[in-house]
Amino acid sequence: MNCILRSAVLGSRGLWFPTLNAVRAMSTSGGPTPPFTTLSITHPANHITHVELHRPEKRNAMNKAYWSEMVECFNQIAEDSECRVVVFSGAGKLFTSGIDLMDIAGDLLQPKGDDTARIAWYLRHIISKYQNTFSVIEKCPKPVVVAVHGACVGAGVDLITACDIRLCTQDAWFQVKEVDIGLAADVGTLQRLPKVIGSRSLVNELALTARKMYSDEAKSCGLVSRVFPDKDSMMAGALEIAGEIAGRSPVAVQGTKINLLYSRDHSVTEALDYIATWNMSMLQTQDLMKSAQAALEKKSPKDVPFSKL
Amino acid sequence: MNCILRSAVLGSRGLWFPTLNAVRAMSTSGGPTPPFTTLSITHPANHITHVELHRPEKRNAMNKAYWSEMVECFNQIAEDSECRVVVFSGAGKLFTSGIDLMDIAGDLLQPKGDDTARIAWYLRHIISKYQNTFSVIEKCPKPVVVAVHGACVGAGVDLITACDIRLCTQDAWFQVKEVDIGLAADVGTLQRLPKVIGSRSLVNELALTARKMYSDEAKSCGLVSRVFPDKDSMMAGALEIAGEIAGRSPVAVQGTKINLLYSRDHSVTEALDYIATWNMSMLQTQDLMKSAQAALEKKSPKDVPFSKL
Amino acid sequence: MNCILRSAVLGSRGLWFPTLNAVRAMSTSGGPTPPFTTLSITHPANHITHVELHRPEKRNAMNKAYWSEMVECFNQIAEDSECRVVVFSGAGKLFTSGIDLMDIAGDLLQPKGDDTARIAWYLRHIISKYQNTFSVIEKCPKPVVVAVHGACVGAGVDLITACDIRLCTQDAWFQVKEVDIGLAADVGTLQRLPKVIGSRSLVNELALTARKMYSDEAKSCGLVSRVFPDKDSMMAGALEIAGEIAGRSPVAVQGTKINLLYSRDHSVTEALDYIATWNMSMLQTQDLMKSAQAALEKKSPKDVPFSKL
Amino acid sequence: MNCILRSAVLGSRGLWFPTLNAVRAMSTSGGPTPPFTTLSITHPANHITHVELHRPEKRNAMNKAYWSEMVECFNQIAEDSECRVVVFSGAGKLFTSGIDLMDIAGDLLQPKGDDTARIAWYLRHIISKYQNTFSVIEKCPKPVVVAVHGACVGAGVDLITACDIRLCTQDAWFQVKEVDIGLAADVGTLQRLPKVIGSRSLVNELALTARKMYSDEAKSCGLVSRVFPDKDSMMAGALEIAGEIAGRSPVAVQGTKINLLYSRDHSVTEALDYIATWNMSMLQTQDLMKSAQAALEKKSPKDVPFSKL
Amino acid sequence: MNCILRSAVLGSRGLWFPTLNAVRAMSTSGGPTPPFTTLSITHPANHITHVELHRPEKRNAMNKAYWSEMVECFNQIAEDSECRVVVFSGAGKLFTSGIDLMDIAGDLLQPKGDDTARIAWYLRHIISKYQNTFSVIEKCPKPVVVAVHGACVGAGVDLITACDIRLCTQDAWFQVKEVDIGLAADVGTLQRLPKVIGSRSLVNELALTARKMYSDEAKSCGLVSRVFPDKDSMMAGALEIAGEIAGRSPVAVQGTKINLLYSRDHSVTEALDYIATWNMSMLQTQDLMKSAQAALEKKSPKDVPFSKL
Amino acid sequence: MNCILRSAVLGSRGLWFPTLNAVRAMSTSGGPTPPFTTLSITHPANHITHVELHRPEKRNAMNKAYWSEMVECFNQIAEDSECRVVVFSGAGKLFTSGIDLMDIAGDLLQPKGDDTARIAWYLRHIISKYQNTFSVIEKCPKPVVVAVHGACVGAGVDLITACDIRLCTQDAWFQVKEVDIGLAADVGTLQRLPKVIGSRSLVNELALTARKMYSDEAKSCGLVSRVFPDKDSMMAGALEIAGEIAGRSPVAVQGTKINLLYSRDHSVTEALDYIATWNMSMLQTQDLMKSAQAALEKKSPKDVPFSKL
Repeated sequence: MNCILRSAVLGSRGLWFPTLNAVRAMSTSGGPTPPFTTLSITHPANHITHVELHRPEKRNAMNKAYWSEMVECFNQIAEDSECRVVVFSGAGKLFTSGIDLMDIAGDLLQPKGDDTARIAWYLRHIISKYQNTFSVIEKCPKPVVVAVHGACVGAGVDLITACDIRLCTQDAWFQVKEVDIGLAADVGTLQRLPKVIGSRSLVNELALTARKMYSDEAKSCGLVSRVFPDKDSMMAGALEIAGEIAGRSPVAVQGTKINLLYSRDHSVTEALDYIATWNMSMLQTQDLMKSAQAALEKKSPKDVPFSKL
Repeated sequence: MNCILRSAVLGSRGLWFPTLNAVRAMSTSGGPTPPFTTLSITHPANHITHVELHRPEKRNAMNKAYWSEMVECFNQIAEDSECRVVVFSGAGKLFTSGIDLMDIAGDLLQPKGDDTARIAWYLRHIISKYQNTFSVIEKCPKPVVVAVHGACVGAGVDLITACDIRLCTQDAWFQVKEVDIGLAADVGTLQRLPKVIGSRSLVNELALTARKMYSDEAKSCGLVSRVFPDKDSMMAGALEIAGEIAGRSPVAVQGTKINLLYSRDHSVTEALDYIATWNMSMLQTQDLMKSAQAALEKKSPKDVPFSKL
Repeated sequence: MNCILRSAVLGSRGLWFPTLNAVRAMSTSGGPTPPFTTLSITHPANHITHVELHRPEKRNAMNKAYWSEMVECFNQIAEDSECRVVVFSGAGKLFTSGIDLMDIAGDLLQPKGDDTARIAWYLRHIISKYQNTFSVIEKCPKPVVVAVHGACVGAGVDLITACDIRLCTQDAWFQVKEVDIGLAADVGTLQRLPKVIGSRSLVNELALTARKMYSDEAKSCGLVSRVFPDKDSMMAGALEIAGEIAGRSPVAVQGTKINLLYSRDHSVTEALDYIATWNMSMLQTQDLMKSAQAALEKKSPKDVPFSKL
Repeated sequence: MNCILRSAVLGSRGLWFPTLNAVRAMSTSGGPTPPFTTLSITHPANHITHVELHRPEKRNAMNKAYWSEMVECFNQIAEDSECRVVVFSGAGKLFTSGIDLMDIAGDLLQPKGDDTARIAWYLRHIISKYQNTFSVIEKCPKPVVVAVHGACVGAGVDLITACDIRLCTQDAWFQVKEVDIGLAADVGTLQRLPKVIGSRSLVNELALTARKMYSDEAKSCGLVSRVFPDKDSMMAGALEIAGEIAGRSPVAVQGTKINLLYSRDHSVTEALDYIATWNMSMLQTQDLMKSAQAALEKKSPKDVPFSKL
Repeated sequence: MNCILRSAVLGSRGLWFPTLNAVRAMSTSGGPTPPFTTLSITHPANHITHVELHRPEKRNAMNKAYWSEMVECFNQIAEDSECRVVVFSGAGKLFTSGIDLMDIAGDLLQPKGDDTARIAWYLRHIISKYQNTFSVIEKCPKPVVVAVHGACVGAGVDLITACDIRLCTQDAWFQVKEVDIGLAADVGTLQRLPKVIGSRSLVNELALTARKMYSDEAKSCGLVSRVFPDKDSMMAGALEIAGEIAGRSPVAVQGTKINLLYSRDHSVTEALDYIATWNMSMLQTQDLMKSAQAALEKKSPKDVPFSKL
Repeated sequence: MNCILRSAVLGSRGLWFPTLNAVRAMSTSGGPTPPFTTLSITHPANHITHVELHRPEKRNAMNKAYWSEMVECFNQIAEDSECRVVVFSGAGKLFTSGIDLMDIAGDLLQPKGDDTARIAWYLRHIISKYQNTFSVIEKCPKPVVVAVHGACVGAGVDLITACDIRLCTQDAWFQVKEVDIGLAADVGTLQRLPKVIGSRSLVNELALTARKMYSDEAKSCGLVSRVFPDKDSMMAGALEIAGEIAGRSPVAVQGTKINLLYSRDHSVTEALDYIATWNMSMLQTQDLMKSAQAALEKKSPKDVPFSKL
């Protein structure tokens, strides 16, 4: 199996030689990385950061600590010039069961305030804060590859729709759960899911009935771009994709992420104007010359040393 | 039949046993419900309204009466606090053959007005009125599940793209017909179809060539989220989905529909701001507490009694 | 050959019998049409213009001449009232290898200007000019059917995403190449691809890793609406689709293209308002009466003679 | 009086001689026009409709009846092809004291609903309904000249900002009152006032402090375009302006209103595209030829007979 | 002069009795409030926070410390439920001379980065950070009254255009200075000034020529809403306006600010929808009942005790 | 008078010494500059281009030649790196009487096309072309100062609202004339005028009644930023303003124009993002260092030699 994984990661073009152990080690980290209590941060390879949601004994439920740690974590990653790409996954038996209802109940079920308007004011503040937990993933210019195994429920869907590339295992399933607990999903799913997959009928059905969607449907509707037989192979696949990204010019890669997000929310005309304005400086990078030369010499961009960004 | 329908609506997914007769009864109502002449309105189960396009002898062609009855009908549904979800289907052998060209010819082919500008003014008025016939479906906050069998032609496509969830039978086919009669589709198809399915090339091909699309392609491109072997099973399936929706908090369900539509037409940032503002009151519903408690007790939300909305 | 093509264009779907030679003739024109040096322009059938990218010895790489010839070519087509639809393809062994790096290197790698800001100013000018090369395809109201065989790399993807209907051969592959040469794609791919296919995860993966996508994935994700076994059958298929379009009212067809593009970049409400304003004059066309009458007489719209537009 | 009004309407600017009585008659109608209970509708001259807010004994406070009568009234005006322009004013000693707090208290202070979310749902419905009371003025394509004397308080400001041309008397004053009764103005003032006058600092000051603004400041900031010494002269002035408008092509006038409103809410590029699409039919009016000919003959457009619109 | 100030502050409705000393004390605070080094924070009256730019010996030039202290300061104010309104002014002889060119030179003139693209990346980060210095004023829901005396140059104009109400002294002058030092103003002036005053020709002239604008022109164009003879009377006037705002329902006031800003950047239709959604909870405040009752009892809203927000 | 003009042009900061003759020469050029037949192009000073509308014997009416010459002229100016600013004025007794109705009549009154839709298609093409005549002024990044004397009628208003800075003489008057000839103004006035002046009531009144507005009202409403006693002094004033602009960094000046136009049509958030992206390259100009140094040395930016742009 060793050689299988190696070829999975190596692919046709690359330089990757992760052993089975390496990938397994990645899948089962020792625990959260202080000062975080819900996230484990490792660096499985050059320029790649692995963020693992790490509350396996709680089915990776998102508690209060998680909401602020995500912001802290991705702000650090945005500033870390060594990091060029992120792999995000969950520790233990499943990706995440969604919000930790018990931990969070006070905020939502007994909100503070002297009257309805003041409670509303407080709730809006809380919702915005929670929304930001996932929006930081988009604000971070490094691409985020998310790898889902087992269940991805409720806020888990909000989370993965804010990531750039979605992978899952054969046994994965997804559930837009919020309607089951009496609310319209307000931290990202209703806003991003319709822009992430192409079937509006399916989006509506998932959001209105809270039914589970399994990996094959997730693949055919385009929610995930690849399905893997198990978590090990998925993590190897995630590493491979991350390796492909890490090996390219960070000026090109991060400009691509930023402009893809811009395009999502603007007309084509607006988006063309924006990238022309963007690239009038970015095309002055040395990476362009270096990459063009490598291309002419039939070398891979991954053999080119790029400066930090 | 009562108990059959009840189980249809209340049952968990494995427990659906509508008899052939029950569903057939639903499929073949006695005729339009006065004062309507083109629509039959029934209530197959708690909180579910069934609207049936009912001109089977005219292949459910949309005549002048239909255009205004739809508005009246959906305005009533919007106000009816008993109704939480709508199933829409067509009586007879097919869903609809589109507009009733003979009935409508006067309006479009011999429009009123003293000169070109005045005729244009009149036509714009007519078009806006016809557009509204389908837009009321979106303006109504109750989700609409549409079930298509046989042909769905021309204005039929305009109609179904304004619905929330689309189902069809194996024998269904769809045709964007307008270009065949010399006009660009102006009551919804060109506006909504590209936001309903993910393949722009396909949208363009359908709209520019007026070719038929059959149920398998409709499923694979995401126009419909499920295909059923025949009309009976489709109606049973529609009822089941409607039952899932009807059983959940109307505050959650209708807020979800409204915010999904908002998201379609706004950037992610705008849509997140909107739902935060929306939910600052909606999270103060008792439904949240009731639903959360049911979830903790491992009960289905469908066992929770919710107040009217 | 005359009758073959005529049947290609006029025939109903069952009646398509182009010979291998006819289509091959179309596929292998003699060379660029003066004054063009990179494009061959022919008229395989009534109202159909065939534009062929014709630098086969350079793998149809896009050189400086190409960038301005495209603008000239499509401006002519927009003005040519005989032309109702365009088929676009590439001569030789593949569709296109993308930009001609050697020819274009001076502009991008040694841009003019006394300081960084002035170089930036110059680059923005160049980028806008290159963007326009593809945007003219959208600005031209005649639908463009693009037929891809073999490789479609880099700027080739920018090109095809600006076309209306995409077809390809079984052996076709697509590659968003820009990140490999150190830049974020700035002439259309990042702006149009997300609005052309339904899986955002796939769009991101393609753009961030520059991996190849083969015809089967291109079909399942909706990039192309049909895959053909080889170039001959694809060209026959392209002609057939073009024939369907050419046979319909140009008022209806071109209004459809313009409004589909408008819908892409606007909310449903805005787009409905726009087409109501559009159609208040366009519904006053004689084509409507002619087409309606043909429909009542069960004739094909292709049998109706429409005036020039 | 006939001839006076006629000269008012027909006269060139130097020729305006309405007698005091004529204008007074207009200012003091006998009472509401059935079936309306709050509005008096008269026709002081050809093509001019005068709508008077008529609850003088209640200081023209806006009660529940008013909210729905406005919608009915302006829908009628929109359909009335005889009417080309509207003058709106208030009966009695002042324009309006705003909402009738006593009459409306039930709706706002004791709203219906089983929990906070359901009350919110109800309130949103009410607010939208009230908003529509003023939005109908904009939706009606006939220009509305509003003439304010004495006080214009609270909802009165919401009302006048939805009108097209604003006039006032020397003794008029304006007050954005809502903040004084504990709410952010939600039926138009906060939305339209910033687009109606050019000083944002002033808009904010008025809305945040509820201070009164007198006629001289209203003139210098551009809220009103003219100030008159008293109500009689203002009504004469309003009639004169209305006469200028009524005498011109309704195709030109109503197209101008619609496009001015469109421009307010769109970019210049969008608005130029819209009017090009608008005018491609409207320029085909006979009014253009008639008006051009009159211009060449140095005649006033008011001497040209235009068809109904 | 005591009585003059008293009447200035008291105005026609109020309860304010600031003595000359009080206002003078406000104008000349002892120095920055730790931990701030550039800002002095005081509380001249209930619910009013006074923020003073305090580097008088440096002509209140904005140094690096200032950029981050503003963010910290306004974030605190946003969270401080005691504060309902802010007065902002400058210590010493003038409001501000703009950025501290010497202190900031390193960031802008010797930016970090290995190549042009990386320097650009760094600069964009810096610009965004500086922009945020002023955007926090808008993000803070408490209204900000800015009082300008003497010079307001360069970044000073960026600052005041982000405030809600602008006042100045007779001797004040304003200068959009950026073009003089070789850049297009990038922290707010070009973005907000056109939406703050009504004459586009003037905006362009100021921004393109860097000429000074004096207080009388600032008043007539609407940049400021009031001009005062000297700083003492201006500070008294600012306190009066602040007192008017502080005395009203914070639910109403802060909702008004938020919705006025929303309206600036959205169409009227969008803004009406937003406030309907906003007020469905906010109208459930007790402040409404309290304020309405006070109004009926002819009491000032300032006599009503409102809960914290 | 010589010294008066000199001081007018010299202003307080400058280096200008135009003699009366110079300004007069500028005002009365010999005739159109070939190949133009309606425009005279001169270069009164370094970096300043003077474009004069030159059909004095036809009251500067805009004929067919004019529409295309404007495009050609401003495209040349956009490319001319010597030109940094444009002064636009009219030859002879008045600025312009608007379109040349006789010359243009064929296009508008007898448009080509086989049916209403085809005529509409043709008209839309014509309108777009005419719109472009004025939009080129905005697309050209060099600021345009327009100087109006005598009449500015119809299309003249469309023209000046597309310019950046507006000046006029005491005897100037403005008239939105289109409604008088039976159409809604479709080449810019309805789209730009509301964004150019602050009083919406006035905009509506002007557009709906076609009344004349004289120079004093034009100044007070902000349409023009300065009024001069006569044409000579206005031209001197225009030259002075142009001199101020020409003397500054073209990187700063043209970036300012582009971003001011962007701001007009976007939200503040969007516009801030855009200029941050713009300036990440533009701040790397040497002009910044040169200008900053000049500022520190108390020198005028006009003494700094800037590279071409």
